[in-house]
Amino acid sequence: MGLGAIQLLPGGVALFYGEALFPHLASALVTVVCGLPLALANSGQDRRMRPRDGFLVVGVGWLLASIFGALPYFLSDTLSPVDALFEAIAGFTTTGATVMTHIEGTPHGLLLWRALTQWLGGMGIIVFAIAILPLLGIGGMQLFKAEVPSPVASKLTPRIAETARRLWMIYGLATLLCIVALLLAGLGPFDAICHALTTLSTGGFSTRDASIGAFGSPAVEWIVIGFMLFAGVNFELHYRILTRQLRAVLGDVELRWFLGLVGSAAVAIAWLLHQGGDAAPLRHSAFQTVSILTTTGYGTADYALWPALAQFILLQCMLIGGMAGSTAGGLKSLRAVLLFRGLRAAVARAVHPHAVRPVKYGRAPVGEDVLAAVGAFFTAYVGIAAAAAVIVSLAGYDILTSVSAALTAISNVGPGLGAVGPTETFAHFPGYVKLTLGVTMIAGRLEIFTVLVLFSRHFWSR
Amino acid sequence: MGLGAIQLLPGGVALFYGEALFPHLASALVTVVCGLPLALANSGQDRRMRPRDGFLVVGVGWLLASIFGALPYFLSDTLSPVDALFEAIAGFTTTGATVMTHIEGTPHGLLLWRALTQWLGGMGIIVFAIAILPLLGIGGMQLFKAEVPSPVASKLTPRIAETARRLWMIYGLATLLCIVALLLAGLGPFDAICHALTTLSTGGFSTRDASIGAFGSPAVEWIVIGFMLFAGVNFELHYRILTRQLRAVLGDVELRWFLGLVGSAAVAIAWLLHQGGDAAPLRHSAFQTVSILTTTGYGTADYALWPALAQFILLQCMLIGGMAGSTAGGLKSLRAVLLFRGLRAAVARAVHPHAVRPVKYGRAPVGEDVLAAVGAFFTAYVGIAAAAAVIVSLAGYDILTSVSAALTAISNVGPGLGAVGPTETFAHFPGYVKLTLGVTMIAGRLEIFTVLVLFSRHFWSR
Repeated sequence: MGLGAIQLLPGGVALFYGEALFPHLASALVTVVCGLPLALANSGQDRRMRPRDGFLVVGVGWLLASIFGALPYFLSDTLSPVDALFEAIAGFTTTGATVMTHIEGTPHGLLLWRALTQWLGGMGIIVFAIAILPLLGIGGMQLFKAEVPSPVASKLTPRIAETARRLWMIYGLATLLCIVALLLAGLGPFDAICHALTTLSTGGFSTRDASIGAFGSPAVEWIVIGFMLFAGVNFELHYRILTRQLRAVLGDVELRWFLGLVGSAAVAIAWLLHQGGDAAPLRHSAFQTVSILTTTGYGTADYALWPALAQFILLQCMLIGGMAGSTAGGLKSLRAVLLFRGLRAAVARAVHPHAVRPVKYGRAPVGEDVLAAVGAFFTAYVGIAAAAAVIVSLAGYDILTSVSAALTAISNVGPGLGAVGPTETFAHFPGYVKLTLGVTMIAGRLEIFTVLVLFSRHFWSR
Repeated sequence: MGLGAIQLLPGGVALFYGEALFPHLASALVTVVCGLPLALANSGQDRRMRPRDGFLVVGVGWLLASIFGALPYFLSDTLSPVDALFEAIAGFTTTGATVMTHIEGTPHGLLLWRALTQWLGGMGIIVFAIAILPLLGIGGMQLFKAEVPSPVASKLTPRIAETARRLWMIYGLATLLCIVALLLAGLGPFDAICHALTTLSTGGFSTRDASIGAFGSPAVEWIVIGFMLFAGVNFELHYRILTRQLRAVLGDVELRWFLGLVGSAAVAIAWLLHQGGDAAPLRHSAFQTVSILTTTGYGTADYALWPALAQFILLQCMLIGGMAGSTAGGLKSLRAVLLFRGLRAAVARAVHPHAVRPVKYGRAPVGEDVLAAVGAFFTAYVGIAAAAAVIVSLAGYDILTSVSAALTAISNVGPGLGAVGPTETFAHFPGYVKLTLGVTMIAGRLEIFTVLVLFSRHFWSR
């Protein structure tokens, strides 16, 4: 019902620009009418959640949001049902892959809705990642369990609500700041709002076919770089900055890894671009590196024309992604740290089999179970991406297109390489490929396991 | 000194064919003269090995063998020093990647030496994999520790010698059988011997530019398929077949996975080839699938012309490889099983966090430490392949060439895709790329950790 209400917002914008109101009003109505029985059936019920309920709520939540979120595209005759669903999934998962081939001819109402789906998706994901995920104990995220005290089922709901309020405040404030900054840099109100919504959610939908590059403004680009970086950082850290716990922020291992990765990838690519005679290598490189590593997916340059090595670095950045607890997707720098430290410990253990040398994260030792869980996550990530890539290549696409389409989907980036490169769209894929990539986007967004457990026998048995 | 003595064999062949004797005799002499002080220095020494010595012996062993094994190529003016080293490493690691662009014009003595390096490499690797690796406790191989009793340092040497004798007997017998079968199928003695040596070692060096395809004989191809499969299976299982422990063989989990993978990949590719109007889809598909999965690298068809999906399946087969305890390289089906089961257990644990449901392999439970070790191995595998691919792409090669060159090197397959496709060689790479790929081949062959520990501070400290 909330989603239905929010659909009135783009309706207002459509009214303002004199565009068709019907798709927005009809979508809002259908969504509210379908939501009503669900809300009534659940009112007065016990609202306490067990971890197992969490999986279902989250998994079904994203799917339902995408289905109802697809209505405006479909009802406005802009997209076919499958395309509309793809676009909505790419929205709510903050992926930003698009099947729209002519964005600048699309009504403002729809463009705002497109941006809003990403912003709402980002809102959901922060809470999912920080408040719910550690309790589900998957993919190594149990590391953070200690920071969310009393994971007792009955107390879960109020705790989540409190955390959510805190995080959404930061998210909202940052979005407002981004809007103001973009306005000051010369963007019109509509462009400023839409891009702020899709920057803070690391979504990447733009109001222009040429993405951020369309504005040709270095100021806009640096502002967007800054806010993408902000959105790629764990929101728990932002809260600590606000509450002046600076020491904890500066000592954060994952933050240092994330910034180190951003920095080294950006410098390496800048150097390659400089060799190639690019006029502004650092800006182009920084923008694209940050855009891919934070899994936003904006573009200012056609990186398909960059040296193979630069593209390859971007492809690897796609896999790693941003920080845990942010709106960014990907494997997450936290897991990269843990994989690396687990490997280092395994090498040390091979030399001294009997020496006890636990892996550490911050000051706390990391158990073998957490390392095994991270290994399982990495396996699932690579395995699902490979399976999705096989299905793409079944449709006759080359290996680079297939692999990068699967990787950009599971990591919620947006653009890839080859036939899904920065100047291309996903429109040319057959329906089954779009649906496959849609499922892959949801699986990636919900940290794989949330979706995998729904296919597990154990989940449905008593 | 043994290696030096063996170098006289190709010398004999050179004499028979009236080719230059000098490179072989000189190489043999240099190798023996350099080996003499080493042998003298170690005679009368305590020959007991600790695990730590194992790493050094194995790592340095492969490197020294490659350096001295490169002499015949270099001294015959056939290859430059870097190329000779690359070819020797591709031999002793049983990779089969080549920098020789005109194999049919190469003297018989050198071709036999080339094949012998692979056969010797395979001989070493079986013993390394079955007798030494489980004791080093790396990458999940500690699973097999129980099967090699009393891993006490002082008893290690006689135990290894006994196991080695048993395995080499099987290896030698199978090679003889393969020679006879190839002779019966119409090959000349020289071709039969060389190909048997490189089939049983899953090496893949051929005496022809067009590899096995040059003979245009379905009988030869099916024989080679059979012996490649044999060589891709754990040699411990072959011993059990000989000693009639058939029940243990049929119940072997890894064997079933390996054959299942071979079967499904071969059928899928055969279907794709059939769609494309191939005259003998099953034979072509079976040959290439088995050749890649066992990491042999022979070819009968230019799979670069096959549908993208078929190539992609082959690329994934390259990563997985054959069975542990065989001469095949790659991640190994054993680790694929463990990764999959670890993932399944992690999903089950996400649903029921408090249920104790250990991962099983055969009848034995697999500890979290083994799963973490396999995860670390997978991380190292992917990480090193990615790093090697970056260096290849630094030389200006496209992503597919870079990734497949790195993958084919670390998995010890031989050919890749793109500029290292089945009709190409590695000759066009600059020296630093060849050396990088050489190190990658050795790292892959010695199961990564053996090489990684040599770079670890812990290894060199007391």
